Amino acid sequence: MNANKKTVIVFSGDLDRAMAAFIIANGAAAMGNEVSMFFTFWGLNILRRPDKVKTQKSFLEALFGRMMPRGAERLGLSRMNFGGLGALMMKYIMKQKKVNTLRELIETARALGVKMIACTMSMDVMGLKKEELIDGLEFAGVATYLGEADESNVNLFI
Amino acid sequence: MNANKKTVIVFSGDLDRAMAAFIIANGAAAMGNEVSMFFTFWGLNILRRPDKVKTQKSFLEALFGRMMPRGAERLGLSRMNFGGLGALMMKYIMKQKKVNTLRELIETARALGVKMIACTMSMDVMGLKKEELIDGLEFAGVATYLGEADESNVNLFI
Amino acid sequence: MNANKKTVIVFSGDLDRAMAAFIIANGAAAMGNEVSMFFTFWGLNILRRPDKVKTQKSFLEALFGRMMPRGAERLGLSRMNFGGLGALMMKYIMKQKKVNTLRELIETARALGVKMIACTMSMDVMGLKKEELIDGLEFAGVATYLGEADESNVNLFI
Repeated sequence: MNANKKTVIVFSGDLDRAMAAFIIANGAAAMGNEVSMFFTFWGLNILRRPDKVKTQKSFLEALFGRMMPRGAERLGLSRMNFGGLGALMMKYIMKQKKVNTLRELIETARALGVKMIACTMSMDVMGLKKEELIDGLEFAGVATYLGEADESNVNLFI
Repeated sequence: MNANKKTVIVFSGDLDRAMAAFIIANGAAAMGNEVSMFFTFWGLNILRRPDKVKTQKSFLEALFGRMMPRGAERLGLSRMNFGGLGALMMKYIMKQKKVNTLRELIETARALGVKMIACTMSMDVMGLKKEELIDGLEFAGVATYLGEADESNVNLFI
Repeated sequence: MNANKKTVIVFSGDLDRAMAAFIIANGAAAMGNEVSMFFTFWGLNILRRPDKVKTQKSFLEALFGRMMPRGAERLGLSRMNFGGLGALMMKYIMKQKKVNTLRELIETARALGVKMIACTMSMDVMGLKKEELIDGLEFAGVATYLGEADESNVNLFI
């Protein structure tokens, strides 16, 4: 086990939980840790490009894709979202307090060398294609996660 | 600490989170790990038998029992459930993609020797009796969990 | 790494998840572990004093403060809350079963020396002031959490 490795599974696609995940990951990376984030299920929405990307999809895949938020700017809160109003309010407050936005946190993660891995099985189930996701990702499954977790001393599921 | 042990607390009773828990647990077991899953609170619903079992219950226990889903086939999604429609859609897609159902994942866990432990305190609070739960479970409390977690190198709360 | 240290991040402000967090933390402390709980985002609501405290707040901070539950007695359930009815029912059942209330669990945590740390960045975002939170807390950020997690063998995110 390597005291300098950490993993975070990002299952949730809520703005608040996504921010918590990146704040922890970036903090750990800034302190010299090797950090891997695994995005699965709703967490994949965090990684979607904001613009619509033309892809070949089945009817249900297209429906699912349309119903899920496209990227970090469009996520809702896990509580008190009120159809997006809560998320807007939270973002407004964070801007006032000069807290980094989720988009900035993702940029920082990339700059700090945090490994961002999209779960290929979840991508398949949700009908998300590689070209719909942001740049700089790796693609892997649960075995890769378990390999990394085995070498890490902090493993969180968010 | 034993690099070959893992624990997962399954607190959530949502279909998507339950699937994530079993996919991780089964993956770890397939890679030679000793895996223990602790089912607590809503997570106990995953373990309920699909058929109604006659038990002695107080009024509130019976009410609670009726309101909570009976087993793996009846769980909803944590997001976009729409009164069960989302869960149906997800299950339909997973079938098309040949992803194992939750029921199959539970069977696989059993076959791989994953220890499935139902939290007795939660059972008491929710009024769930042993005969209402599926076969092959162990029954224990938080001390047992902590003992196992102490010997494990990956411990998740889902 | 110290086998006798544990950390729990309490992100959720739901009654059921808060109880799970304290039951695990208190169990670990009772078994001789050094336990640190980090309260962040909605988890801070668990630590609010039940009485209204006069503070200097911006309009949005005051609005947020009014919309969030004030302390352990007013939290809802993560599922089946039904505008508070579910939480009431759960508390009634727990009383009958002689399960400790969340308030009692917090008292026990304090008595057992569990370190309760409020995340200062979240406090700032949510507009919560120190005087609005219960006694006996420490105040710190993500670096402190990571330092503690590095020395712990069980780290959960709830």
